[in-house]
Amino acid sequence: MALITPPNIDPATFAKALSQLIDIVGPDWVFTDPQAELSPYLDRMSPTPAELRIPSAAVAPANVEQTQQIVRLANRLKIPIWYYGTGKNYGYGGPAPRLNGFLVVDMKRMNKVLEVNEKMAYAVVEPGVSYIQLYQHLQEIGSDLWIDCAAPAWGGVIGNAMEHGAGYTPYGDHFVFQCGMEVLLADGSLVRTGMGALPGSQASSLFKYGYGPHIDGMFTQGNFGIVTKMGIWLMPKPPAHKPFMISFDKEADLHTIIERIRPLKVSMVYQNAVILEHLSYSVGVQRPRSDYWNEKSPMPNEVWEQARSDLDLGWWNMWGGLYGLPKNIDMQWDIIRNSFADIPGVQFFEEGDRGTDDVGWNYRTKLMRGEPNMTEFNIVNWRGGGHINFTPIAPLYGDICVKATDMMREIMNRHGFDYITEYVAAFRGVIKLLMIMFDPRDEEERRRAYQCSEEIILAAASIGFGELKAHVEFMDLVAGTYSGQDGGLGKTLQKVKDAIDPNGILAPGKSGIWPSSWQSEKPQINADRSADIAPNS
Amino acid sequence: MALITPPNIDPATFAKALSQLIDIVGPDWVFTDPQAELSPYLDRMSPTPAELRIPSAAVAPANVEQTQQIVRLANRLKIPIWYYGTGKNYGYGGPAPRLNGFLVVDMKRMNKVLEVNEKMAYAVVEPGVSYIQLYQHLQEIGSDLWIDCAAPAWGGVIGNAMEHGAGYTPYGDHFVFQCGMEVLLADGSLVRTGMGALPGSQASSLFKYGYGPHIDGMFTQGNFGIVTKMGIWLMPKPPAHKPFMISFDKEADLHTIIERIRPLKVSMVYQNAVILEHLSYSVGVQRPRSDYWNEKSPMPNEVWEQARSDLDLGWWNMWGGLYGLPKNIDMQWDIIRNSFADIPGVQFFEEGDRGTDDVGWNYRTKLMRGEPNMTEFNIVNWRGGGHINFTPIAPLYGDICVKATDMMREIMNRHGFDYITEYVAAFRGVIKLLMIMFDPRDEEERRRAYQCSEEIILAAASIGFGELKAHVEFMDLVAGTYSGQDGGLGKTLQKVKDAIDPNGILAPGKSGIWPSSWQSEKPQINADRSADIAPNS
Repeated sequence: MALITPPNIDPATFAKALSQLIDIVGPDWVFTDPQAELSPYLDRMSPTPAELRIPSAAVAPANVEQTQQIVRLANRLKIPIWYYGTGKNYGYGGPAPRLNGFLVVDMKRMNKVLEVNEKMAYAVVEPGVSYIQLYQHLQEIGSDLWIDCAAPAWGGVIGNAMEHGAGYTPYGDHFVFQCGMEVLLADGSLVRTGMGALPGSQASSLFKYGYGPHIDGMFTQGNFGIVTKMGIWLMPKPPAHKPFMISFDKEADLHTIIERIRPLKVSMVYQNAVILEHLSYSVGVQRPRSDYWNEKSPMPNEVWEQARSDLDLGWWNMWGGLYGLPKNIDMQWDIIRNSFADIPGVQFFEEGDRGTDDVGWNYRTKLMRGEPNMTEFNIVNWRGGGHINFTPIAPLYGDICVKATDMMREIMNRHGFDYITEYVAAFRGVIKLLMIMFDPRDEEERRRAYQCSEEIILAAASIGFGELKAHVEFMDLVAGTYSGQDGGLGKTLQKVKDAIDPNGILAPGKSGIWPSSWQSEKPQINADRSADIAPNS
Repeated sequence: MALITPPNIDPATFAKALSQLIDIVGPDWVFTDPQAELSPYLDRMSPTPAELRIPSAAVAPANVEQTQQIVRLANRLKIPIWYYGTGKNYGYGGPAPRLNGFLVVDMKRMNKVLEVNEKMAYAVVEPGVSYIQLYQHLQEIGSDLWIDCAAPAWGGVIGNAMEHGAGYTPYGDHFVFQCGMEVLLADGSLVRTGMGALPGSQASSLFKYGYGPHIDGMFTQGNFGIVTKMGIWLMPKPPAHKPFMISFDKEADLHTIIERIRPLKVSMVYQNAVILEHLSYSVGVQRPRSDYWNEKSPMPNEVWEQARSDLDLGWWNMWGGLYGLPKNIDMQWDIIRNSFADIPGVQFFEEGDRGTDDVGWNYRTKLMRGEPNMTEFNIVNWRGGGHINFTPIAPLYGDICVKATDMMREIMNRHGFDYITEYVAAFRGVIKLLMIMFDPRDEEERRRAYQCSEEIILAAASIGFGELKAHVEFMDLVAGTYSGQDGGLGKTLQKVKDAIDPNGILAPGKSGIWPSSWQSEKPQINADRSADIAPNS
């Protein structure tokens, strides 16, 4: 029996709902015991206590039909649901719902690779399909297609694309390479987008547009519908591929590096997203903090310098890959080398130039050829497992990146955290990934992490950097920074939400979008939470 | 004084509205006289008489503020408006509105290039900016950036991207290379999408996503809002560029050609959209039909053969371009030549291989380096100026393309029209462009064109080909073919429409999306029209 009920649902109604859920999916796939069964649905890596976001229950449907029945039931009873496929969402709030009592719909069992088309180079997957699963499936069937994966192998192919996630091959903008979706709406009906809405079309995973508004994007990173199928374009294995790393000696090289990256990126000499790791990030993946520093205060530069020397790293370490014909790659590599060769202390690393046990080289090069692995996730062990990620977006200009680096370091150090960052240069913008690392068992540290998070988000917005994604606890705060045109974007999203989910059952509060029916409760939600979370200042 | 009033608006109310429009934009920019002033807003190239779609008036605002005031007025009085920037929309219904009496909002005066960023390779434009204007602007400021244009130089940069249009360089998918929009909603408020919603962001034209649902696509090809500003990525002039043409001797080569294109396209050896012109299309651009054939019946093969010989063309003529470093281009050209070399009768044409006055070579190569021109538009002179375009989407498979070719030729010939077509191979799909050419002054021919259009759309849908775009007269028919999941897509669009345009004033019926308030009138609209258009059978 569940101890927590969904908001505004009385225990008797919820008990009846649980029995109906059992009718739908069978008794093995409805989870209600907070200790034994719901533990995997709690978030223990966040700056807020796990007790603030406990689901009332979780249910794991086997297929689309069962998911439709669950959604219809929730819609009838006005039970808010929190849904996802696979992946962990660590750093952004984990598996736990937005608020206590939401019913989690866990689509992990819907993990079929529905189609692989070798000639046309695409796959169609269900929400429970992870990168590693798709990769292994392609290996098993002897496919010559590469996937583009996120850093952790357990990430979901659909979930990541829906969150505007990025990978490491030329197919790295996952939403751009998505093609065609099936979406389950709050009333239990299905919509297929693009060509998929035309009965008998063979082009639903081949051509991004259908007729009329192109609505795939509407279903990303929000709560307008549950994506139950998606096409994803795959990259034919190129005839040749060359990964490389370029290290830079001085932290002050940042301005020059960014200015040199830009023309290479805009002209597509760089075909994939260029990763520019700060030393902190490169070290964090390979070593726990305790190897170097056990103080509460941020690790000082001379200690970072020691780690840098131990691991043969630069203060900035740039990773990229070239893809195409062998000679073509040689020409591009010449251009790239020449672009950076005059920077004092620069070092170029090609295959074989670093030891066979070089952790960074080994996992980065795997990612750049679409081989999922879990190495990068080691970075969460830096300081006790707790971490909060930020992904503010900046223009690819040296002076702005330097300003942001200085500003964010000051904020993070002032709150007692190490400054851990990397830049991911996408087509014309750059994602400045930041990570607060902390020990979630230390309440004081947790509270500081919370305060520091708020300050990072607001400081980034003050210099025009919008977050690409937000931790569940900071969704309202981030959505609030997109406040231009008298809040025009938020008002529009609100209208669409109310129109296609009038009872507001699909992930209320996701990305700061609350159904109208929840508006009166929203201030109270926030008040309650600040009482719980309130910094001890 | 206008002779036609908007649907459900009495003459006195409309007279008052006109006087308010004059207050907003000044007397020079409100057009009401059907003969003298509204003539440019009529459609004389369609299968239906121009009298079926006459605006009540047209108004040309100078800026966003005036457009907001016009929309607020229309919203208050429930006057339906039909809006666009620049371009002609010939072949799809021209400038005339969906129904008699709509108020046309013509944004031709809003034609500022608001920004060109040379370092980041993008421009921000208003709706009235045409391809030729943007091109000339870049020339004037000495920019090294290329645009990607549609075939007619007068096309609108925003309008084409919003209709999911395509061009001829590697930046040919115009919606993919769009980045950031400002949209005017039915209530007169503005929304900026993506990073543009964050005050002070410098990334609104650099990064496609903001926070929350990615709603740019929602405002394409529909009637949810008026796009008033848009960022578009431009291509840095490549170090080298090589256009080419490959001609094929036999119509029956189609299967082989398509099968050979696919791997080149999927692996991106072909960087731009490959155009495969049927002889009919190649000839039509260069000669009027009367040079060869004056019968009503379709031009027979032996006459096409004569034209082919005159103009040194193949039955299929393939156009492509390579972009990059000189050596890189040489390698790619080798691959392409080798892919087709064994097809008997194949001919390869490079720069200098065709005469300096070769019409096809000259305009196709301009398009592939982003130089807008009007040559291709000559094709509408084939048979009297009337034409209707179709763009069904097919998978890039030889057998399916052959089937479609045979089916469409049979339909068009049976209705007495020449079979005029080309294939445009996009990333993994192919657009099968079809054109019905007819004399719009010949009523019988017009009626046949109408009947033939309906048959083409339904026949294409019957083999799973969805139309990418539709002539204004066939919007409901095309939207109706996307009927899967119990009409799920249409129902969803309807809900969004009603939510963000509750009075249904923005382009009612565009793309088959009618506001709920119009539903009761819709059957009557269609009944009225079929009485007017009714085939004489």
